[in-house]
Amino acid sequence: MPPSLPKGNAIIGQSGGPTAVINQSLVGAVLALQELKPVRKIIGMRHGVNGLVADQLVDLSRTPAKHLEAVARTPSAALGSSRDKPDPEYCARIVEACRKYDVRSFFYIGGNDSSDTCRIVNEIANTRENYELRCFHIPKTIDNDLVLSDHTPGFPSAARFQAMAFEADSLDNASLPGVKINIVMGRHAGFLTGAAALARGDGRDRDRNGPHLVYLPEVPFDPERFLSDIGRIYARLGRCQVAVSEGIQTPDGRPIVTTLMQHLDRDAHGNVQLSGVGALGDALADHVRRNLKVAGGKSLRVRADTFGYIQRAWPDPSPIDAREARAAAKFAVRMFAKGDTSGSVAITRRKGRAYKAELRAIELSDVAGKTRHMPAEFIAGHNDVSDAFIRWCRPLVGKLPPTARL
Amino acid sequence: MPPSLPKGNAIIGQSGGPTAVINQSLVGAVLALQELKPVRKIIGMRHGVNGLVADQLVDLSRTPAKHLEAVARTPSAALGSSRDKPDPEYCARIVEACRKYDVRSFFYIGGNDSSDTCRIVNEIANTRENYELRCFHIPKTIDNDLVLSDHTPGFPSAARFQAMAFEADSLDNASLPGVKINIVMGRHAGFLTGAAALARGDGRDRDRNGPHLVYLPEVPFDPERFLSDIGRIYARLGRCQVAVSEGIQTPDGRPIVTTLMQHLDRDAHGNVQLSGVGALGDALADHVRRNLKVAGGKSLRVRADTFGYIQRAWPDPSPIDAREARAAAKFAVRMFAKGDTSGSVAITRRKGRAYKAELRAIELSDVAGKTRHMPAEFIAGHNDVSDAFIRWCRPLVGKLPPTARL
Repeated sequence: MPPSLPKGNAIIGQSGGPTAVINQSLVGAVLALQELKPVRKIIGMRHGVNGLVADQLVDLSRTPAKHLEAVARTPSAALGSSRDKPDPEYCARIVEACRKYDVRSFFYIGGNDSSDTCRIVNEIANTRENYELRCFHIPKTIDNDLVLSDHTPGFPSAARFQAMAFEADSLDNASLPGVKINIVMGRHAGFLTGAAALARGDGRDRDRNGPHLVYLPEVPFDPERFLSDIGRIYARLGRCQVAVSEGIQTPDGRPIVTTLMQHLDRDAHGNVQLSGVGALGDALADHVRRNLKVAGGKSLRVRADTFGYIQRAWPDPSPIDAREARAAAKFAVRMFAKGDTSGSVAITRRKGRAYKAELRAIELSDVAGKTRHMPAEFIAGHNDVSDAFIRWCRPLVGKLPPTARL
Repeated sequence: MPPSLPKGNAIIGQSGGPTAVINQSLVGAVLALQELKPVRKIIGMRHGVNGLVADQLVDLSRTPAKHLEAVARTPSAALGSSRDKPDPEYCARIVEACRKYDVRSFFYIGGNDSSDTCRIVNEIANTRENYELRCFHIPKTIDNDLVLSDHTPGFPSAARFQAMAFEADSLDNASLPGVKINIVMGRHAGFLTGAAALARGDGRDRDRNGPHLVYLPEVPFDPERFLSDIGRIYARLGRCQVAVSEGIQTPDGRPIVTTLMQHLDRDAHGNVQLSGVGALGDALADHVRRNLKVAGGKSLRVRADTFGYIQRAWPDPSPIDAREARAAAKFAVRMFAKGDTSGSVAITRRKGRAYKAELRAIELSDVAGKTRHMPAEFIAGHNDVSDAFIRWCRPLVGKLPPTARL
């Protein structure tokens, strides 16, 4: 017998950095909620909880499936997103707004900060305010840093972008040789930077294709060793393509860009340098240009690119990611429909040769505010990912454009 | 009756910045040359004329069509490219190498510098050295800056990248509002920066979609007007996405990055700043952050991305571009086969509603070393492209991913 659900409205929002498939989750949840009788209205928050407390809302109860499907295929957050990290006081205002709009179920699509918002809102509503509110977190983050998940919706598409970008850029680098450094998103976890290694392919050229070096935030970065690594590759291949996480740091946890910029007068100029999005790449390129001596003393062609925002919402998602992002949201609505009062969703993977994902209900407190890092078995030495990482990552990104050399 | 062609070998090379379809041109030429009886061997130069004078060559006479077709679909220059701009002395060495390898036809895929190399080599061989050599230029450049052409192979694919990148990034900017500046390649011509405007689509949201402002190298750039432009858009939409050519300059032709950096001590630090690939974007973002006052005095979220090398060889070419790059190369071989002794190829467009391109033989001296700029009718005011530009550009890029809003 189906449980009796609280009658009232459902609300849904999107939070944090956009992804290529976050609208698949939105649409998956809305379509599933449209079928639930006790749910009267389905309300969308504009720009996350920010829109809820500021009465910026949109009614999705009767948005036609055809329009929703077009939205699902559109990258980035269609409701708008938010960088707010609500504290308990802010969360109390969220609960107040839920009461005002007769909201009885709260769905929030986002990363570990968003799951923490869910957790706090859930606690305040049901214990302190004695207001029955069921809160569900729907996972999303290109950083892949949610605990208990094999991977998170959004990551496979961003990983696909990295693989395609490094593949094209490595061919570019082979064509006009030099040292090429590409800076990849992911301040605390190296999964996305590691995904660049998929660009090597699995053919006979894999040992010659870039990226030749991969620097992760999990491994302390040594600028001197960086030079000798590049020098060694350059001596062998006459070129070197490098994947660097934006989050690389010193052994004591300082961002590398600050240490490389030490020779600059930071009072007068530091602001310009350090606030710049290209700063880390430019500093590393400058470091190599000044300090790496190559045989024959010829001057080295060194360049850095910082991929920027397009890596998180490139309009060519991984097909698996699109499916899973939707499935995870539908799963959260199913948790609500079968009587769960709160929770989050984790994607796990069945052991075996063929890729097979499963969804699992977890507690909000299991995931809230925690950060997953690259496990040791995914890291190879101080400048690469392991074969185990490649085997883990490859099925997620879909088919990559094939390439051939002369 | 077919003309009698000089018996001997043919040589082919790729030059300048890679594109997504430059290998279509290579393969188109090689397959066509494989069918010409008087051509004994088809020799590929490694890294352009650099490989020719350094004996870095590869025999393509019997490379199987199946392998060549796989190479054709691979972005970037499969033979390797070169930035060398040969002077007459260098060109004399090229002619000498042609004689050494019994080369009687010379095909060079590249931009206006490459057509100039063809022209000089042709002149030295046939007049000064009395060596019969037939020289053909096959057009290629993402900058679209060759005279007499409607557009150049490589441009449509790079324009497609811009349209997709700005579309995704504009959705990102709508989701997390702020000022977003994207720096686009093209130091002397604004075609590629203008292509960003295709991201607006042609639906009812076209006036709200980014890019909201477009700054071309053909229009002198005024940092003060830049601020008021952004302020006006921001007041209307609460966000602003801006396309900026890397080549924007002051009315007297100085690069903007140098004028924005004037407050810095250039002796001590200028080098780091100006050599950085992110420097222009970071300087513009910093300029906006410091100097633009918005209503309510709240602090503005400003960010700049520089798309970098991936914009020229992204592995998702425009289908029209792939076809035309191949056709232009086949056309050059046909010119040779029917007895022409030198020349280049221009793509022209038939007037009419439906897109239809034609190929035309032109003289090397018509195109060599000349630069085409955006014509006045493609430019709208000081910060946009015209509808005529959009109509011209749209058919080139292929189908873009559709998007929908809530």
